Amino acid sequence: MRRIAVYPGTFDPITNGHIDIIERGHQIFDEVIVAIAKSSDKNPLFSVDERMKMINAATKKFKNLRVESFEGLLISYVRNAGAKVIIRGLRAVSDFEYEFQMAITNRKLYEDVDTVFLMSTVKYSYLSSSIVKEVAQYGGKMDGMVPTVVSKCLKAKYRTLKKGL
Amino acid sequence: MRRIAVYPGTFDPITNGHIDIIERGHQIFDEVIVAIAKSSDKNPLFSVDERMKMINAATKKFKNLRVESFEGLLISYVRNAGAKVIIRGLRAVSDFEYEFQMAITNRKLYEDVDTVFLMSTVKYSYLSSSIVKEVAQYGGKMDGMVPTVVSKCLKAKYRTLKKGL
Amino acid sequence: MRRIAVYPGTFDPITNGHIDIIERGHQIFDEVIVAIAKSSDKNPLFSVDERMKMINAATKKFKNLRVESFEGLLISYVRNAGAKVIIRGLRAVSDFEYEFQMAITNRKLYEDVDTVFLMSTVKYSYLSSSIVKEVAQYGGKMDGMVPTVVSKCLKAKYRTLKKGL
Amino acid sequence: MRRIAVYPGTFDPITNGHIDIIERGHQIFDEVIVAIAKSSDKNPLFSVDERMKMINAATKKFKNLRVESFEGLLISYVRNAGAKVIIRGLRAVSDFEYEFQMAITNRKLYEDVDTVFLMSTVKYSYLSSSIVKEVAQYGGKMDGMVPTVVSKCLKAKYRTLKKGL
Amino acid sequence: MRRIAVYPGTFDPITNGHIDIIERGHQIFDEVIVAIAKSSDKNPLFSVDERMKMINAATKKFKNLRVESFEGLLISYVRNAGAKVIIRGLRAVSDFEYEFQMAITNRKLYEDVDTVFLMSTVKYSYLSSSIVKEVAQYGGKMDGMVPTVVSKCLKAKYRTLKKGL
Amino acid sequence: MRRIAVYPGTFDPITNGHIDIIERGHQIFDEVIVAIAKSSDKNPLFSVDERMKMINAATKKFKNLRVESFEGLLISYVRNAGAKVIIRGLRAVSDFEYEFQMAITNRKLYEDVDTVFLMSTVKYSYLSSSIVKEVAQYGGKMDGMVPTVVSKCLKAKYRTLKKGL
Repeated sequence: MRRIAVYPGTFDPITNGHIDIIERGHQIFDEVIVAIAKSSDKNPLFSVDERMKMINAATKKFKNLRVESFEGLLISYVRNAGAKVIIRGLRAVSDFEYEFQMAITNRKLYEDVDTVFLMSTVKYSYLSSSIVKEVAQYGGKMDGMVPTVVSKCLKAKYRTLKKGL
Repeated sequence: MRRIAVYPGTFDPITNGHIDIIERGHQIFDEVIVAIAKSSDKNPLFSVDERMKMINAATKKFKNLRVESFEGLLISYVRNAGAKVIIRGLRAVSDFEYEFQMAITNRKLYEDVDTVFLMSTVKYSYLSSSIVKEVAQYGGKMDGMVPTVVSKCLKAKYRTLKKGL
Repeated sequence: MRRIAVYPGTFDPITNGHIDIIERGHQIFDEVIVAIAKSSDKNPLFSVDERMKMINAATKKFKNLRVESFEGLLISYVRNAGAKVIIRGLRAVSDFEYEFQMAITNRKLYEDVDTVFLMSTVKYSYLSSSIVKEVAQYGGKMDGMVPTVVSKCLKAKYRTLKKGL
Repeated sequence: MRRIAVYPGTFDPITNGHIDIIERGHQIFDEVIVAIAKSSDKNPLFSVDERMKMINAATKKFKNLRVESFEGLLISYVRNAGAKVIIRGLRAVSDFEYEFQMAITNRKLYEDVDTVFLMSTVKYSYLSSSIVKEVAQYGGKMDGMVPTVVSKCLKAKYRTLKKGL
Repeated sequence: MRRIAVYPGTFDPITNGHIDIIERGHQIFDEVIVAIAKSSDKNPLFSVDERMKMINAATKKFKNLRVESFEGLLISYVRNAGAKVIIRGLRAVSDFEYEFQMAITNRKLYEDVDTVFLMSTVKYSYLSSSIVKEVAQYGGKMDGMVPTVVSKCLKAKYRTLKKGL
Repeated sequence: MRRIAVYPGTFDPITNGHIDIIERGHQIFDEVIVAIAKSSDKNPLFSVDERMKMINAATKKFKNLRVESFEGLLISYVRNAGAKVIIRGLRAVSDFEYEFQMAITNRKLYEDVDTVFLMSTVKYSYLSSSIVKEVAQYGGKMDGMVPTVVSKCLKAKYRTLKKGL
């Protein structure tokens, strides 16, 4: 049996913490699908296409990895992808209850899929996409926070946004 | 002395978790008033009228229960209603500190009213109005999450919203 | 219907935080029973008799209050006492999950009794019997932490214990 | 590649919550080893032999499952067993930080093994071996908390202990 | 060596909790700079000028205190101000992880500055600018929550806003 | 004014996390006193003398640092030492409430002393004396967890203890 796991998220943009989780999931499962949520609610900095390009560039070294995007209920997407496992990174207590709520709801909607929680390396435990964007917006150094390709895209994006003002 | 308790909330919409708390409060106090907050800040899915109709339909079996709505400070409403107790459901650690902050502020404003925390059945402990709306929006099954009347209203509401796009 | 509530605890010794909860419970219910747990596991400083005398002395002003002790399952005691409600004080996040675990277990054992959580005044929110004992042991001032009768008993107890060494 | 996962614990005794985690781990990995810690610090109610018999009886239905015991560092045991994954059940916020501390220490000692966190069914989320023992000690009903074999052993154990007094 | 500490925040408006932290920081460091963040994201009730006037009026009694405002990365501002310490008030568990995330990010950007956490008096531990605004908006009493000057400004502000509707 | 800060603890034994906090405190205050608690309750692995020798060896590089031991109430010791500040390291949410309880009690006993919380480097955030002892007891590698002197003492201690069995 081939074990497929879906790692869903907004990835706006992908950070070194996400990549650490991908690497760990990759060692445990036969195939990992990184699934970008096209959530219409949040106002993302990068388009789904831009986010997909950055993830693809940053995860080239991993075999048996696919990057996709999805709309609607995560659990329907996971089911259609033939996956049995959802991967979630757990960093801090504040993530904990929201993650549990989502995992329980997903189980209720489709009980054949289970959620597996992985823990990133300690040095990434306080890293998030929003912190990275705040640093980038004011020209702070992003060394060790994101892959080089993401760092470049962030600089370019904020340069464009400032010109537009 | 007649013991009146107010159970305030946004109820957008009412879930089985809320009804569980109402039932527990109902067994402890002589009268329970479900008080819908007309908060202008949040952008509710249902109008106050729609929310009131759903609550009335879902709580018909409880005697000594009234559904009302209020604007402004909760504590002024509670005082005017002649109630001595505010009921709040406590589900998870993340609720905890916000609830305490509100309870302490209310006590400061009017010390004769106290807040009583009840705990819902475990199976509803990870349920919330926003999770229900997310499931309903994408056509997921809401079995066991909300009363039938609410399930119907949610489907109708999202059908209307999609047509409007 | 007469509403009886049981407020269980070790009360080794009773603090001003406990008395604050008793006072709040007293305003909501028709009768409050303070129930001292004869837990054999913990190694209490005061005997059940000593604890009972201190509570009686410190709660004289409350009508409709009884102080008792119990052994075995709390829920069996509550049931035999004809009570429908267990009162618990909620101070901090760290209490939260243990309290929920107990409340859920009690509900499972006998579903007609429910647990109601009250919140003490903020100034008592960081007070506990063990902190008070630590302060008393080294001769620190206990002003505002415990009733005068308890403060006296603590001093006498530690005086006796030191002589015994 | 055969994926072996170790599920370590004290299991004093095994509860339905543990069995739920075993079942979930069993669906994700090729083989699960339930590893009983012979911790000398804690004062267990059941001997390692008794615990092993109960687990074996309660998990007969699972193929590709072994029950063993270990002493010393968990990570050395896992390594020798040829496993790449440690399974831990995550129930509540209070578990969270201890679990993370252990997972990080284990990674530091041997980085080729990773810890995977699974979440039990909601109805078992507040269940623990110590709660079960407290209920059993005073003759409370253990329905739905532990497998029948464990319920019988608990009754027998407390009967013997009381006679011994 | 002169020890300068920066106490950053939105201060929309300053509360008695903030002033309590300022007083504590003032006793530990040689100079404290209250630094108002001109964050463009949030929609503040008061302009930076109004906030600065209120803070100046409420902190007149403290020597060696300056009130300033800043834009961009906090750490760049702190560095330019020649300060070595950032002061943050810690009130509740929910603050904790966000504060840690910020402190770690700031350390990463400029390691010569460290964050020091102070704890306000218990009676202010559940107080926040947003709670105060909610109370003020509906005409509730703000006694003990904010300095008199802030209480007056809040009343005037909401009077103006209501006329404007 | 010379700013003296006391950093109290059991230090059984001192870890790299403690040393990180000492270094940070050292940069903020004029003098730091590391104060070993002779708590009779806990059953320490190392005697006060042994602990003091290890701390002295591991902190030789810091000027203006003294290592002492104390008995009784911390706050009395701090007062006698002429210090105005207690330093505490804050690692995780689970420390948080206990630390607050202690800080508030200390303030109540003697209000002229305040507690300052510092945060260790992320890589030490999950490190504790008890984890280190567990690793050492079973012969695990302690690289990066404790200073070399402590690592040696731990090995020697457990060798002696095993012989004694």
